[in-house]
Amino acid sequence: MKKLFQKGVAEFLGTFVLVLFGTGVAVMTGGDRLVTALAFGLSVVLMAFAVGHISGGHFNPAVSLTMFLKKKLSTVELGVYSLGQLLGAIAGSGLLVLFLGSNAALGANTVSAALPQDGFVELLMGGVVEMIMTFIFMFAILGATRSEKTQPFAGLIIGLSLVVVILFGFDLTGVGVNPVRSLAPALFQGGIALEQSWVFIVFPLLGSVLAAHASDQLDF
Amino acid sequence: MKKLFQKGVAEFLGTFVLVLFGTGVAVMTGGDRLVTALAFGLSVVLMAFAVGHISGGHFNPAVSLTMFLKKKLSTVELGVYSLGQLLGAIAGSGLLVLFLGSNAALGANTVSAALPQDGFVELLMGGVVEMIMTFIFMFAILGATRSEKTQPFAGLIIGLSLVVVILFGFDLTGVGVNPVRSLAPALFQGGIALEQSWVFIVFPLLGSVLAAHASDQLDF
Amino acid sequence: MKKLFQKGVAEFLGTFVLVLFGTGVAVMTGGDRLVTALAFGLSVVLMAFAVGHISGGHFNPAVSLTMFLKKKLSTVELGVYSLGQLLGAIAGSGLLVLFLGSNAALGANTVSAALPQDGFVELLMGGVVEMIMTFIFMFAILGATRSEKTQPFAGLIIGLSLVVVILFGFDLTGVGVNPVRSLAPALFQGGIALEQSWVFIVFPLLGSVLAAHASDQLDF
Amino acid sequence: MKKLFQKGVAEFLGTFVLVLFGTGVAVMTGGDRLVTALAFGLSVVLMAFAVGHISGGHFNPAVSLTMFLKKKLSTVELGVYSLGQLLGAIAGSGLLVLFLGSNAALGANTVSAALPQDGFVELLMGGVVEMIMTFIFMFAILGATRSEKTQPFAGLIIGLSLVVVILFGFDLTGVGVNPVRSLAPALFQGGIALEQSWVFIVFPLLGSVLAAHASDQLDF
Repeated sequence: MKKLFQKGVAEFLGTFVLVLFGTGVAVMTGGDRLVTALAFGLSVVLMAFAVGHISGGHFNPAVSLTMFLKKKLSTVELGVYSLGQLLGAIAGSGLLVLFLGSNAALGANTVSAALPQDGFVELLMGGVVEMIMTFIFMFAILGATRSEKTQPFAGLIIGLSLVVVILFGFDLTGVGVNPVRSLAPALFQGGIALEQSWVFIVFPLLGSVLAAHASDQLDF
Repeated sequence: MKKLFQKGVAEFLGTFVLVLFGTGVAVMTGGDRLVTALAFGLSVVLMAFAVGHISGGHFNPAVSLTMFLKKKLSTVELGVYSLGQLLGAIAGSGLLVLFLGSNAALGANTVSAALPQDGFVELLMGGVVEMIMTFIFMFAILGATRSEKTQPFAGLIIGLSLVVVILFGFDLTGVGVNPVRSLAPALFQGGIALEQSWVFIVFPLLGSVLAAHASDQLDF
Repeated sequence: MKKLFQKGVAEFLGTFVLVLFGTGVAVMTGGDRLVTALAFGLSVVLMAFAVGHISGGHFNPAVSLTMFLKKKLSTVELGVYSLGQLLGAIAGSGLLVLFLGSNAALGANTVSAALPQDGFVELLMGGVVEMIMTFIFMFAILGATRSEKTQPFAGLIIGLSLVVVILFGFDLTGVGVNPVRSLAPALFQGGIALEQSWVFIVFPLLGSVLAAHASDQLDF
Repeated sequence: MKKLFQKGVAEFLGTFVLVLFGTGVAVMTGGDRLVTALAFGLSVVLMAFAVGHISGGHFNPAVSLTMFLKKKLSTVELGVYSLGQLLGAIAGSGLLVLFLGSNAALGANTVSAALPQDGFVELLMGGVVEMIMTFIFMFAILGATRSEKTQPFAGLIIGLSLVVVILFGFDLTGVGVNPVRSLAPALFQGGIALEQSWVFIVFPLLGSVLAAHASDQLDF
């Protein structure tokens, strides 16, 4: 019981830092692609080593879902992890409002007008981009954590993997690949970010289901 | 048989991500040297840990050729790997066309007018640059994977090595050092990129043959 | 006794390089966020491997305080470490004055006018930012050094963690999270930096006390 | 005998790539601080893993001198290593002349007019900067290679250490910390770079002697 609570706290702290640092840097740099990507990726590195030994360091319900499907997480743990992650993300966005003195821009995700489609098809296209990116990111996580030889530094590899995912998707969706990282700032920002938030919840979770099944097919 | 198919799939996936993320970032940043180099290099890191445990993580026929010459790959495997890589690269470029809504610029390689030669000599000079860069890159791969102590994180070193190769060759050839990474976007773009594509197939393969022989001379 | 002296010298050297390179790059780049963050973070990587085997590589009284509270440092060591760090930071800032030919700007920390408060509340807000960032940074240090499997490369992880902390706090406080890194340039610069220096001493130390207690609660 | 020749070839290749990629990127980016620093540093990472298992991967007479003073290199080896390094650096600069079609700017080092001194004192000040930077860089090398636990990835740490050294010294001297990296481009460029080349030979070697002695005092 105490262990479970500690795991929830670890996931809270990790997701808090990911959202505070990642979206904070996105906003404060006015959307610098490289610096934002490094802020998100290195936040994962930092918190994976800080509290990963307690909870595994997911900081993302899409990761926890994949781990649940791979039978590395119980149903109760999935609930506790997701709750900790959601509260952590909200705390991160909330603190950012306080530091920035405004909730106008908090680094929420929206499907980019740069995609060559319109209306609902554009949303779907953005969703597909999120699904593919999450699928790839989950493969990196499953691959880096599967062997005892790579596990000690898996947090570094996973963080660097997130960097390149963000470098790629930056213009297309702003890169969620994490339902709570997308939802929390949208809750404060409202508007189009909140309207589109379902895209950034549904499609990353689809990507994580696909990754769990595909990795089974490839025997790992 | 199933194992061989899985290896081909792993090479497909890895090359797909390399081309999608690498050339995608090159196009979307309008050719930012540092961000493009990091996108290619960190894609290798990501996929090396994601599927490297299945196939070794080549994602490049020039790498597979070196490994074949070093007797670490059978003839059948060389064929399967190369086919998976070619199809993965084409899928990556094809998806990029869909996301960008255009096949005008897909990050194909061309020999730069910045080289101080003209006509065929310019092409040869560009080819020599590709050959030298591939030779150096193969040395990094052979060196980083030769010992059990460095193998667990070889994917990180190889990815960072690709970063510096791209930082150097960016203005000279756009940096192929990988026949399918060059051919796939050229197939969609056509024009001068397709005309010059033989340069980016022949010279990297020459570089990989040279590297295999040179490493033999240095007893590793 | 000789051992203790060597530890003090190691801390002197490490803090000297951290302040010389970190604040030096901040000043010479005119405040480039990414390059400054990398300069501080990679200075920690460099010196952690250079002399970390002698003293543990703190280079920061807030780190030494956390380690003292975690009973990994004796009272005498805490004193010797802090003295070495203070002298090293002063030497770093002093040498920078010599190289730059001016003490007008030395990379001291000040609470940013960008914070949405005024007067004393602004100072407190800046202090809270410093406290939170130090808390997070200490968690990374405690987490990365706790297991024998991650200890050999903990210096790399801690340096990369400092990079992202600086990317985040750059606009808010300039990022101290280290009393001597803040005090030394302030001593040479004087003015508002010296006036506010108590903020950058008190709040990071508070953050390090909080981190020591929180990690106890999480059983590590 | 064959072993010794292979070591010389390894040092030749490593220094060739360091100078070709490092100075090449410095020139082609018009002196971009971050990209140049990464090009030099990641070239060391690349070649340390490519051929470091043959020669130890010095690529720098100042490193070889430190290793000689620490009795890890024989007198004959010191000669062979230095010769290989000098020839490699010259080959790198020579090839760059061919690729750029000009020997006007090849990334040679000169003492910066930014230093707040004049004439001979300015040269001495530049030399002191080189000496201090080399001293620090040698400490990173000695520290990272001293334990079996860090040796497998020492090349990564040393490369990242070179990155931060270059970030710092970029405006002051262009950063040599390596006699042949400075001399080779100066030989092709001539002029002030050749006139000042003694500064970039004498002071880095002084820094490496100091580092060897200081590390003895600190018992490592």
